[in-house]
Amino acid sequence: MGEFDLIAMIRRGVRGAGPGVALGIGDDAALLRLPARAELVATTDVLIEGVHFPCGTDASRVGWKALAVNLSDLAAMGAVPAWVLLALALPRADARWVRAFAKGFAALARQHRVALVGGDTTRGPLSITVTALGLVPSGHALRREGARAGDAIYVSGTPGDAAAGLAIVQRRLRGAAAGASRALRARLDRPVPRVALGVALRGIARAAIDVSDGLVQDLGHVLRASGVGAVIEADAVPASAALRKAVADQRRRRELQLAGGDDYELLFTVPRRREFRVPGIAAKLRLPLTRIGTITRDRALVVRDSDGRRVRVGRGGYEHFA
Amino acid sequence: MGEFDLIAMIRRGVRGAGPGVALGIGDDAALLRLPARAELVATTDVLIEGVHFPCGTDASRVGWKALAVNLSDLAAMGAVPAWVLLALALPRADARWVRAFAKGFAALARQHRVALVGGDTTRGPLSITVTALGLVPSGHALRREGARAGDAIYVSGTPGDAAAGLAIVQRRLRGAAAGASRALRARLDRPVPRVALGVALRGIARAAIDVSDGLVQDLGHVLRASGVGAVIEADAVPASAALRKAVADQRRRRELQLAGGDDYELLFTVPRRREFRVPGIAAKLRLPLTRIGTITRDRALVVRDSDGRRVRVGRGGYEHFA
Repeated sequence: MGEFDLIAMIRRGVRGAGPGVALGIGDDAALLRLPARAELVATTDVLIEGVHFPCGTDASRVGWKALAVNLSDLAAMGAVPAWVLLALALPRADARWVRAFAKGFAALARQHRVALVGGDTTRGPLSITVTALGLVPSGHALRREGARAGDAIYVSGTPGDAAAGLAIVQRRLRGAAAGASRALRARLDRPVPRVALGVALRGIARAAIDVSDGLVQDLGHVLRASGVGAVIEADAVPASAALRKAVADQRRRRELQLAGGDDYELLFTVPRRREFRVPGIAAKLRLPLTRIGTITRDRALVVRDSDGRRVRVGRGGYEHFA
Repeated sequence: MGEFDLIAMIRRGVRGAGPGVALGIGDDAALLRLPARAELVATTDVLIEGVHFPCGTDASRVGWKALAVNLSDLAAMGAVPAWVLLALALPRADARWVRAFAKGFAALARQHRVALVGGDTTRGPLSITVTALGLVPSGHALRREGARAGDAIYVSGTPGDAAAGLAIVQRRLRGAAAGASRALRARLDRPVPRVALGVALRGIARAAIDVSDGLVQDLGHVLRASGVGAVIEADAVPASAALRKAVADQRRRRELQLAGGDDYELLFTVPRRREFRVPGIAAKLRLPLTRIGTITRDRALVVRDSDGRRVRVGRGGYEHFA
């Protein structure tokens, strides 16, 4: 089986045409048409076997996640995904693996009506690089740099689940009930990019980021970009039932929630006068949006518990060469 | 040295701002503005150590080539490069390697005023994935599918040089004089994407492709996409002085020219009534543009020598899983 068959196999599962695709896969490059008054939003992310997912991970989960982490970046900008390019390195032409990969990739691509418009397959150690292109009305993107003192800090969903799922996979966390364990692993394997939330936050949030490296570390990026600080109420960060069941110890749970990555929830700041609009968005999307702190003027990031004591966050999230 | 320092190191060498960059590296995604009446042209290509370049290749050459192969795809569409995203997997945080890589990458990026707008660095087996985004006036892109019977087939430059360079590196070709050997290796290591040629061919060429897998194989893509055939005059394909010096045997030289990849020249077809415009482009760009054959109606690809005998092209170019 040659390179061209692999591409054909992936194309079969994933839409290649769609709005704005003047020319899809099959030429030297794709030709894409943007609607008027839209800005292009572009991001790229790599997943490597043994680094971003354990060796032997089910290929359909890898396919899903490779797309999800990129769509999450678009979501954090308030963009709607439109097109993706996929570069795939495979140790050998493994048709079964490719089929399963394409299935996971396509399942998420279809949900968001994303068209696969470019690709490259090559022999090499297993790695997947996705470039996602999205659209946002000109001037309406959410940026990291917009946070202002007094803004409320919100997070979507229940952070810490994916980190707990990873701890279970790596056998650092044992004894969780089967149901809780499954739920947490699903959050690691099949993260849901918060695209609809990003769109809904246009004109409401002042700054946004997706939580990929860990809540505290990613908040740090917002604070630095915006030149502000924050106070986070550690006990306000909502924990899922599965996480509470799997991790009884509060300190350990807190660590997973504040420092664990891979949740792909959105962290965003909202000026007080627009906070009244947040519950309506949460209800419409059936997604918890929880206030966990406040942006401050003094550039420091303080995390405290409900008694007002400072909480130390163990590791500063995940850095690949740290 | 952390992941963020690596990105900073690459950013230092490569322009991050430029026309249309509303927001560059440093947020979840880049924000890009297209001019009116332009189409977006998008392509992605991977280079992997040990597959696309030998282990231990000078990092600055790798940086140059990773960008060049992508710009070449844009050139084949008649597009002007605008923005690139770079995903880099490195076995370890090697500052010297990254500096040299960035230098080679930046040298070519500056020539084409390309801005680096997104990136991801991660630990893993050495691989580089570049996604290049370019612009073309709406409706003016060069496609593979436009060739018609009677069109003249042209190739730019002197094909076969890069394949000879590779044969020298791999010691399959020995005894070449130092000067010729250097020239051929330079064509392998620092291919020149034919961006100005692609732009000049808008409205003149009916179909175009870049020669990455081999002249005959890449021509085959054009023929299939266009539903036509071709006759190629093998002896019309121009050979560089270095290639003639390094490879005295005509059959072997022909093989390198017709089946060897990595030249990144443009292969294009021109209707007869527009052929008179080709010499002016060649003169202006100081680049040989040589007629090497004709598009035919019958879907077969015939390669023949100056005596009219059919030439068999040994291997059909390079396929990664063949």
